[in-house]
Amino acid sequence: MDGKLTVGEGIMGELMGQDYLERRAANRNAFNDALQDYSAEVCFGTVWARPGIDRKIRSIINVAMLVALNRPNQLRHHLEGALNNGCTVDELKEILLQSAVYCGLPAASDGFGVAEEVFRKLGKID
Amino acid sequence: MDGKLTVGEGIMGELMGQDYLERRAANRNAFNDALQDYSAEVCFGTVWARPGIDRKIRSIINVAMLVALNRPNQLRHHLEGALNNGCTVDELKEILLQSAVYCGLPAASDGFGVAEEVFRKLGKID
Amino acid sequence: MDGKLTVGEGIMGELMGQDYLERRAANRNAFNDALQDYSAEVCFGTVWARPGIDRKIRSIINVAMLVALNRPNQLRHHLEGALNNGCTVDELKEILLQSAVYCGLPAASDGFGVAEEVFRKLGKID
Amino acid sequence: MDGKLTVGEGIMGELMGQDYLERRAANRNAFNDALQDYSAEVCFGTVWARPGIDRKIRSIINVAMLVALNRPNQLRHHLEGALNNGCTVDELKEILLQSAVYCGLPAASDGFGVAEEVFRKLGKID
Amino acid sequence: MDGKLTVGEGIMGELMGQDYLERRAANRNAFNDALQDYSAEVCFGTVWARPGIDRKIRSIINVAMLVALNRPNQLRHHLEGALNNGCTVDELKEILLQSAVYCGLPAASDGFGVAEEVFRKLGKID
Amino acid sequence: MDGKLTVGEGIMGELMGQDYLERRAANRNAFNDALQDYSAEVCFGTVWARPGIDRKIRSIINVAMLVALNRPNQLRHHLEGALNNGCTVDELKEILLQSAVYCGLPAASDGFGVAEEVFRKLGKID
Repeated sequence: MDGKLTVGEGIMGELMGQDYLERRAANRNAFNDALQDYSAEVCFGTVWARPGIDRKIRSIINVAMLVALNRPNQLRHHLEGALNNGCTVDELKEILLQSAVYCGLPAASDGFGVAEEVFRKLGKID
Repeated sequence: MDGKLTVGEGIMGELMGQDYLERRAANRNAFNDALQDYSAEVCFGTVWARPGIDRKIRSIINVAMLVALNRPNQLRHHLEGALNNGCTVDELKEILLQSAVYCGLPAASDGFGVAEEVFRKLGKID
Repeated sequence: MDGKLTVGEGIMGELMGQDYLERRAANRNAFNDALQDYSAEVCFGTVWARPGIDRKIRSIINVAMLVALNRPNQLRHHLEGALNNGCTVDELKEILLQSAVYCGLPAASDGFGVAEEVFRKLGKID
Repeated sequence: MDGKLTVGEGIMGELMGQDYLERRAANRNAFNDALQDYSAEVCFGTVWARPGIDRKIRSIINVAMLVALNRPNQLRHHLEGALNNGCTVDELKEILLQSAVYCGLPAASDGFGVAEEVFRKLGKID
Repeated sequence: MDGKLTVGEGIMGELMGQDYLERRAANRNAFNDALQDYSAEVCFGTVWARPGIDRKIRSIINVAMLVALNRPNQLRHHLEGALNNGCTVDELKEILLQSAVYCGLPAASDGFGVAEEVFRKLGKID
Repeated sequence: MDGKLTVGEGIMGELMGQDYLERRAANRNAFNDALQDYSAEVCFGTVWARPGIDRKIRSIINVAMLVALNRPNQLRHHLEGALNNGCTVDELKEILLQSAVYCGLPAASDGFGVAEEVFRKLGKID
């Protein structure tokens, strides 16, 4: 991580934290390099880098989609990212509750479970 | 529609428009009444009625979830509702583009297709 | 349809009606033959033919799964099949309403839409 | 848990057992309270409380939907609930096998895996 | 379409045909331009352009994923693209039949329905 | 495992290895027997046994579908099976990367995670 960051890596670092970028670089290998590049260049460099909606809204959209898509690993990261982008725990609670109506109670219940774990680890809830 | 609106019906009317409420009342029958009540009381009366995040954010969350869930019928309504709640066409374009990254290109492509139809009908795009 | 029915075709005919079997035979071709055989032999001949739960329960399970899976074409057939297997319109209404809680309101709403169409065509609701 | 139970909590207790209600009350906090209320009031108080189909059928529907929705955490609870509502292990085996046809073998295989775990823990299978 | 094609557009044209590219250019507007660019640059320019597996295999992968994802609009295009990339009708029949096992019979049945329509229109089946 | 293998068990053994067949036989009980038979007879005996596409292509299709379906338990087995059927690690990397475009980055990311685990355990990557 001694080189210059690309635009995508910069946004990823703001969202996920510097530690995340370093773990990611340490885990890079000849198998996952293409996925890492895709994530940095397409996801963060091309889409997250666009103006038009702010980063907090982008985080909210992601939390909503990841609950619907049933992807707890990414939800975990993006709940933490949402806090970094200015969402409060109370706002995230509302988003997850709204998912109960549209994605169903099991989706919301799994989402609350992941969020309690993340927020407790970060000292945001007791 | 001559009686007083419940809290849920009031919010639904602001989101979807008065015409929507009237068509809905006209279509009510002994089969779909339970679904209509669930929608008015649970979805709008209990969840949408909550403070904590504003209506525009609730609309954004819904668009994101409905693209992920592959539900074009509801997406159609909630894209129109999102405009009523203050989203711009350009903001909705960004949400749909972000879904390409997380939900996949086919989901985004279907979402753009629905949105073009809705926005053209409403005179929002050429 | 002049030959003897297999076990699977017999069950399919009871569920879907004789007309369905005849349309199906008329549509058989060198491309869809493998799917038709799979449906008759695996789905109906192997699984539906099993004792342990009755046909009405099998229909209820299918309606629940097809709403969750977002497959309106098959839901249409299996709602009609559920009536043939002894489900009432009121029971199917309850199943669809329960899907609002677990699969989300959009799934239930699409399910009610399909059911209204099927039940109206069959003269079961006004 | 010293107060009076609501209708929804009563049904939840019959389905999931008294222990479940107590663990649930012990885990309640300012973050998950809204989800707990939604579950008690909407899911159990509004939908499970309805007449029209009996509790055993409601459990069967849930098992079918949860396998389709890929939600093992809730499937675990509702398989146990299904036994409490009068389903036998053999009936649940049939439901899960039927999911192989409609939801695909991976869904059924995951469902059987969850069920083996639950039923073994409860001493229902060896 | 008078300019030079990008790498992505070139691959898209080989897959989908020249007509597709022209209809696409004619439909481009200020709303869908970002999606079109994403499709040309990310999907075709970055991923399809990679060596490592040939185009026919990429088409096979797409058909499999699109059936699983329940996206008939894109399945339609990619079934036609698969023929352009060297798949035969008989190979596609096998892929769709295999989806019955893993994605469930409703997914396979919808997939066969889409394929019959596409292949009949192209004169590949009667 | 001293008896003669059925056609389906033979194909399953080639795909998954002899150890897999033995663990499977050891785990067979009165609850999961029907699922085991379904897997051996329908999945392997009826579909995998068909000519028309070779085993390597069948493995590729499965990896694509299992990523899309969000079923990591089966993906694990079928990634190993894909290697046994002649896929290389580099080809599987391409399939998983392509899923980022069509199934979304979270699906691809989970898929790469499962694959790294499987390939490392088998000594295929560092």
